[in-house]
Parts: sequence; C-alpha cells; structure tokens
Amino acid sequence: MLIQTAFSSFLFASLCAAFIPSRFMAKPPNFSQYDYETRYFDVLLDHFTFVSDLTFKMKYLISTKFHVPDGPILFYTGNEGAIETFAENTGFMWDIAEELKAAVLFAEHRFYGSSLPFVNDSFKDPQHFGYLTAEQALADYASLIQYLKSSVKNFENSPVIAFGGSYGGMLSAWFRYKYPNLIAGAVAASAPIWLFPNMSNCAGFYDTATRAFSTSGSTVCTKNVALVWDSIRTVAKQHSGHELLRLMFQLCDPLPDEQKLIDYLIDFLGTLAMVNYPYEASFIGTFPPEPVKYFCKGLSDAVDKNVDVDIVQRVATAVRSLTNYTKNQSCISLEGDLPGLDAKAWTLQTCLEMTTPMCSNGDGMFPPLEWDPVVFCQSCFDKFAVRPRLNWSAVEFWGKNIKTATNIVFSNGDLDPWSAFGVLTDDQAPGCNVIRIPSGAHHLDLRAKNELDPPDVVDARQRELQHIKDWIDEWHAKPKNLPRNQMNVDVLYYSKLRNDAKFF
Amino acid sequence: MLIQTAFSSFLFASLCAAFIPSRFMAKPPNFSQYDYETRYFDVLLDHFTFVSDLTFKMKYLISTKFHVPDGPILFYTGNEGAIETFAENTGFMWDIAEELKAAVLFAEHRFYGSSLPFVNDSFKDPQHFGYLTAEQALADYASLIQYLKSSVKNFENSPVIAFGGSYGGMLSAWFRYKYPNLIAGAVAASAPIWLFPNMSNCAGFYDTATRAFSTSGSTVCTKNVALVWDSIRTVAKQHSGHELLRLMFQLCDPLPDEQKLIDYLIDFLGTLAMVNYPYEASFIGTFPPEPVKYFCKGLSDAVDKNVDVDIVQRVATAVRSLTNYTKNQSCISLEGDLPGLDAKAWTLQTCLEMTTPMCSNGDGMFPPLEWDPVVFCQSCFDKFAVRPRLNWSAVEFWGKNIKTATNIVFSNGDLDPWSAFGVLTDDQAPGCNVIRIPSGAHHLDLRAKNELDPPDVVDARQRELQHIKDWIDEWHAKPKNLPRNQMNVDVLYYSKLRNDAKFF
Repeated sequence: MLIQTAFSSFLFASLCAAFIPSRFMAKPPNFSQYDYETRYFDVLLDHFTFVSDLTFKMKYLISTKFHVPDGPILFYTGNEGAIETFAENTGFMWDIAEELKAAVLFAEHRFYGSSLPFVNDSFKDPQHFGYLTAEQALADYASLIQYLKSSVKNFENSPVIAFGGSYGGMLSAWFRYKYPNLIAGAVAASAPIWLFPNMSNCAGFYDTATRAFSTSGSTVCTKNVALVWDSIRTVAKQHSGHELLRLMFQLCDPLPDEQKLIDYLIDFLGTLAMVNYPYEASFIGTFPPEPVKYFCKGLSDAVDKNVDVDIVQRVATAVRSLTNYTKNQSCISLEGDLPGLDAKAWTLQTCLEMTTPMCSNGDGMFPPLEWDPVVFCQSCFDKFAVRPRLNWSAVEFWGKNIKTATNIVFSNGDLDPWSAFGVLTDDQAPGCNVIRIPSGAHHLDLRAKNELDPPDVVDARQRELQHIKDWIDEWHAKPKNLPRNQMNVDVLYYSKLRNDAKFF
Repeated sequence: MLIQTAFSSFLFASLCAAFIPSRFMAKPPNFSQYDYETRYFDVLLDHFTFVSDLTFKMKYLISTKFHVPDGPILFYTGNEGAIETFAENTGFMWDIAEELKAAVLFAEHRFYGSSLPFVNDSFKDPQHFGYLTAEQALADYASLIQYLKSSVKNFENSPVIAFGGSYGGMLSAWFRYKYPNLIAGAVAASAPIWLFPNMSNCAGFYDTATRAFSTSGSTVCTKNVALVWDSIRTVAKQHSGHELLRLMFQLCDPLPDEQKLIDYLIDFLGTLAMVNYPYEASFIGTFPPEPVKYFCKGLSDAVDKNVDVDIVQRVATAVRSLTNYTKNQSCISLEGDLPGLDAKAWTLQTCLEMTTPMCSNGDGMFPPLEWDPVVFCQSCFDKFAVRPRLNWSAVEFWGKNIKTATNIVFSNGDLDPWSAFGVLTDDQAPGCNVIRIPSGAHHLDLRAKNELDPPDVVDARQRELQHIKDWIDEWHAKPKNLPRNQMNVDVLYYSKLRNDAKFF
C-alpha cells in the first residue's frame, strides 16, 4: 500500500530536511485486478458546526459480489492518496471477502484523490484546506455508513469492520474508538498512533530503519552508509564536486546543493526499509524482493573510510541498482515525480494536527537530525499560514491512554521503521490484540497473499481473520432487548445530501 | 438544577406549541452558598477545522479546598445556562468533595451564561451561532482538562469524574464515550440520551408527566386537567371570553389568543412534574414541597364536565396557588421573564443537532400534540436559517447502540417526564450502571442532601458514590508499563491560548 506517502514528515537538521517518500509513489493503476464499482456520496464539508451546509463529493469503491443480507462490510478507511491505490494494494480484504460473505468498501479521504471539496481551490488557503482533519474524515466515513445502512436493505444489520494501514490504520483504530456504535472492530496495520509530540522517542523511525538494514542487510552495510553523509559533503567541496555527485548518482539535473541529495538519500533509505517485502512489489516504484538486502549487496565489505569518492560511488551504485531496477529510469530526479497534491496534502496535515516529530541522534546509519517544535511551527506558519496543534491528538485520539479500547488489532512489522510509534505490547492496549510480525515490513499483512509470504505474516493474517469472525459474532449476538441497529433512519431529511441511491 | 431550560422543545399541535419551561427559570443567584473561584480559559472556537484560530473566553468555577495531589477532580459538564446556576444546584458534588479529597470544577457551556464567543453578536446568524454544538462543547471541556492537567502540578494524575443533569447528563455520558482517556467515569443524571428522532416514543414525556400527576396527585386530578383544554377553547369563544380567561388566570396582559394560554399551561404542568421535589425548592421559580400534590389539592373531586367555566376556574386557581406561592407574583406573564439568551440558545440547539421530538396522543391529561419533522425543519429554517441534522446524534452520540460504554451511571427518577428518553434497564447499557429512583423527579440525586430526601434518593447517592470510588481506584491502578497519564504536555505551543495560569 501507498501508506508511506502518509508520512512526509518534517525533519529539521541544520535547516529542514523533508522526509517525503511519496516521490517514489506510483500513480493509481490504470486497470484494476479487483472488481469494484466507483460511487460518490455527497457529504457535509463540516460535520461539527452549522456555519454552512456545503457538501462535497466523496468517492468510494464498493463490491457486493460476495455479500449476503446482514453479512459484514469490510470498510477501508482511506488515507493520504487516491482510493484506488489502496483498493489495489490491500489484497487481504479481497482475499477474505468470499469466506466472510462480505461487502468490500473503500472510502476516499477528503482532500485526496478526487475527493477535493473545493476542486482546484482546495489547497488555496486555510479557509479551504482548513477542513482537512482526521475528525472530519472519520465523520465522513460514519455518514457514509449511516447512509448505506439506512438505504440498502441488505446492509441493515451488517457489522462493519474497519481496515487501514499506516495513517489509514490510525484512522481505523480511531474509528473504533469514536464510533463503536458503527464499527464492530478494526484492523489497524502498521499504525503509528503514537508518533505525536511527547508520546514516543522521535529517533525511533531511523533507529528502526537502521535495524532493518543491519538485520536484512548487514551491520557492515549500515556502517558504510553511515560514512556517506560526510563523504558527500567532502566531495561536494571539491572542484566540480556537485557535478561529480551528479555523475555518480546519475541525477537528471544539476545539483546546486548537496543537502538536497542527502535529503533524497535519507528518504530513499527509509522507504526501502518500509517496503522490504519478500517479493517484487510495485507501488512505491518497482523494487526487487527484499530490496534492503539487494541494496546492501555491494556494501557489505569494509570500505576505506579515507576515500570519500569510493564510499559515495558504492552507495550511488547501490541506489542506482534499485532506482533503475526496471531498466527504464535513466536518471534520478531529486524533484521526483511527486504526485503533488497528495504529498502536499499530507505535508499540510503534519502542520495541522498530524505532527510527526522525527529525529536522529546519528548513532545509526543516518546523520544527526534534530526536531525542533519551534522551528517546525514557524515553518508551518510560513508555508501554510497555520499553526500545528501539537498536543491535540493526545486529547482527541486518546494519546497513550487507550485502556478502554476494544476490538482492535494492532499489527506491526518489527523491521518497519513506523513500528517505533506503534502499539507493540499487550499491556499498552489491554483490551485490544497486538500482533507482531518479526520479519515484516510496512503492513505486509494487509497485502494480498503471496507464496513468498513468510510464515509469521501468514499466521498474522489467520489471527486477524479469527478476530474479525469473533467481532462479527459479537455484533450479531445482541444483548436481550438491546436494539442492535438503530440505523433505520429516515433519509428524507438528508435531501440536502443527494446520494446515489439508484445504485442499489 | 436548571436543567429544564434544556428542553424547550417544539411541539406541533395545530400550529406550534412551544415547551419552554425556562420561562419559570430563576436568575443565577447573587450570592453563593459554595466557595469557588471564577476563572476564564481561552479556548478554540472551532476544534475540528483549521479555518480560523479564533478563541473565546470560557468561564469555569473551581474549588481546590479539599483537593490533595492526584486526588480526583469532580467536573460538571455545564449545560444550557449560566454555570453558577449549576454550581448552586448540584450540591451532591459539593457534599462528596471532602470525603473524596476532590477538586470541584464547573465548566460553562459555550453560548450560555457569559461564555459567548461573539458577545452580542453570538446569535446573529449561522456564521456566528453555528459553533454551538455538543461536539465543540465537549472539546472545550477536554481542552480545559488538558490545560489544567498540564499546568497544575497537583492535577497531573487526578482522575476526572464527569457530572451532569439533563442535557448536562447527556454531555457527561458522551464525554466518557468520546474521551475515556480523560474521563474516568460519569454520573449522567436524568439524561434523556434517546430523545432524538427514531429512538423513543415521542409521547413519552407527556405520558410520564401524566403518570406523575396521577401518582403524586390523583387520577381524578389528571382527568379534570384533561377537560380544561376544550373548556378553555369554549370559554374563549364566549363574548369577552379572552378577557374572562385573563381574569381567571390573573394574567398580566390581555390575551389575544387562547392557544398562548394553552401552551403556557402545557409548559407549566410539565415543569411541575419535573420539579416535584419533596421539599421547597427555588430554581424554577419557588415551589412548595411536592408541587404536583399541591396543585392537585383542589382538583381531586369530580367536576361537572358540562360547566366549562368551573373547570377552567379550578385549574386557574390551582395554577395561581403555585405561581403566587411566594406571594410576590401578582399576575402571570405568558411572555414570562425569559432569560432570553439562554432559552433562545437551547431553542436554537433543538434546530441544530439536539432535536427533541415530543408529542401527545391525547390519552393522558395533555391535549393531542403532533410532532411533524417536516413542519419542524421548515420552522427551524424560517426562524434561524438552519436545518436540523435529525439523524446525526444516532451516529455521533451512538444512538441506542451503547454496549461498549463503561463507567457511566445513568440515574433516572421514574416520575420525571424526561425519564421516558433515558436508560432505564441494565440490558440497555450492559457496561454501565442503571439507577432508578421510584419517587424521583428530575435529577433529584444531584441536589444537595436534605432531611426530606426519600430513602431511594439517599440510596442512589450512596451507590453513585461507590461507583465513583471504584472508578478512581481503577484510574490509579494503572496496568503495568502503561503510562497512566500522558498529559505532561508542553504548553509552550498553546501560546495562542492565553490562559489564567497565575491562579495556581
């Protein structure tokens, strides 16, 4: 899944190094391997005030192929990208739909894909993009569920199971927190719910990425990479140093500033750790199986640390072996082919309530990177004219106090850098289910089954499926006299919310 | 408590009869029987978008007289009125504070009392009053708790127990639903959480009010009252009929339309049932002990149903015996001395997301009253230029599906008309505690102890106190390795939210 896009976080080194893995992001696929219909739902722009009654068209994808009356609805809480990308890269939901006799539903997150409330003006200023918050997105999803349950007969008593990976996983967990009346349970895969200020060690991401490289590659590899940052700076100082760097990395464009290359490499290495899947995958570029091992192949002998050009050349060769793995990328663009809007929208979210402090102490293979909240806030104000609400998620999304949460699977791959901010032990979430995948990268468990899947991810999916079945049974076993479903609402008064009822 | 104000609901009889018990509401007291300090907190106007960063001053009352470090905080979730009124009429919290070594805190609801975001313009149009929603109010309270916990050393690990009566009780229950990270438990007294469309029988209020009159007064009394509506209409048709009615009821002003008198009486009788306390009380006007019995005294013999004037006169005498109980109200004003803003704000809320369908089938002592959602919605649009979101509370506030809710006491008096929309049986809320008070009127249990309290309310308070103690213990018994409190946030970044830190 494209989750990585989710986490273009800001890293303040000397000035500001941006982690924007989305530059490696693939476009939404042009054809679908899954069979779904694309629909739109008119939903309120602002669920929590009555200042206006503007609506916008939220996209969703739906398949009822396997659904029986009152059968479950598998609901993907879309995150920072076009919803088709998640539909194509969340094979687990499609794989279990037939056995569960379930409908499959993917809802697009507002301000992503084509669910742009103000179309071209959506990111113009805070009066437009200010509606881009997780609370509003969750209310969109809740409204969609209410609408479908009240208008589709077969959905009336259907338990809804939320799914999501990365930021989508955060949303699926929060959906269960805030709307357990609608959500019977949630699979929150690789959800870094504690990436916020004062909740986790900001060095966690890069520490874990280093561990992924030393485990899947070698410790020599990480030591060699650790040398490259100074070496790049030394080479850059030479006569024609920038041009030399351009040639070594085969950059498409002249390099005016070596920091740009360094930022790119930090980004690239973090992404490799995330997508270190056991088979070739093509959703953040196309990478070979176990790309970390692939990368480390040429970097696992000691190098002469006094020969900067040699170090840089060997790292550059390793990078090129991956960026040109498909043989059709003749050069590296540091600008990347950013699918601008989505990356921009996530970058913006980090300046609203999704602030992700990330730092490095320089002990691993990454250079020291400082995270300074004051600098960060100022930079947000300069860029977007907004100030982050750094402490709000600790209030609204329960911070570390999630002891009342139930029916949520928190799954994490131990080598996924984002796991540093996830729920990793049972006592952190006593009412939920914690699943660790020792060899897992970023939400591998949500991907379609593959013969190269390691046993631990196969086992994780089996356990997740069993929890889902339990939640479904619990939903149907209504307590005596307790109306199970009060969603038989009269949609008459939603005339403002014109909908696509004809579909059913 | 002034909760009754909470429920100026719309009743559509032939045209529209408004239930606005607030016309009997007392002003906030000029002196306090309790010892608290009045403070203000700058809080965001809109917690769920980044469209603007406007703040307003929210009032709160606080007493730390009995508080010890990490001792509990008893937090009243203010409802539709000036917060002082609730502080003065929620004696239960004050009565238990010393034993619990607790701080006592009353937070004023936005758009009530002096917590008016736009001061005189607050109710000007939807661009101003549109911020009057329960979600925003709860976020105000959550922000206040976060602020106090992060800035007051003694509050750092304090469990917070929410309290509220009527709409305030709904808020305290919802506060626990949505923010269990902040709220260890909630006492939701006489909280009609299911008064929304499609959740309850809309006739419940008047059916229960009739039952209160037949139980506390007599069935003859209710039968006599049932005759008065037609009799008033018959008298009104006579020559000088309106003037005759004016004289009989000793109205201050000429009566142009008998419907106005009928609306007043419906209102008045509903209020009497609510405040049918065993002792004299003075917060919705001043009434004698057991005002329903008092009212029925002169109406408990059969009357000649053919003599309309006699029926009207006897009802009028009974009404006057109560409205002039203090001997200082020489006439009845049907306009009442409405504390306009507060009543207006609640009336407005019923046109936003707090829609309260109420009807009567005419079987009891009240005339038939129809509730028509279409008429209601149109009337809201005509009056306020907004349309209610009739079905939203079923989504946002969980509707009837509250099986995941825990640590909430739902208490109700069986003779309180609002109990018709409350949680009355354990199986309706399997994770919560249901307390019935057979002889209880509207949230009698929240009032200060009184030697005239019936045993069932004394027992209810004891049970509530025990639950509170259990919740406090549970809060302090943190699971191993689970950080109990993540509120040690750095308030630096709340510089926008200027606060009253000097107090502590």
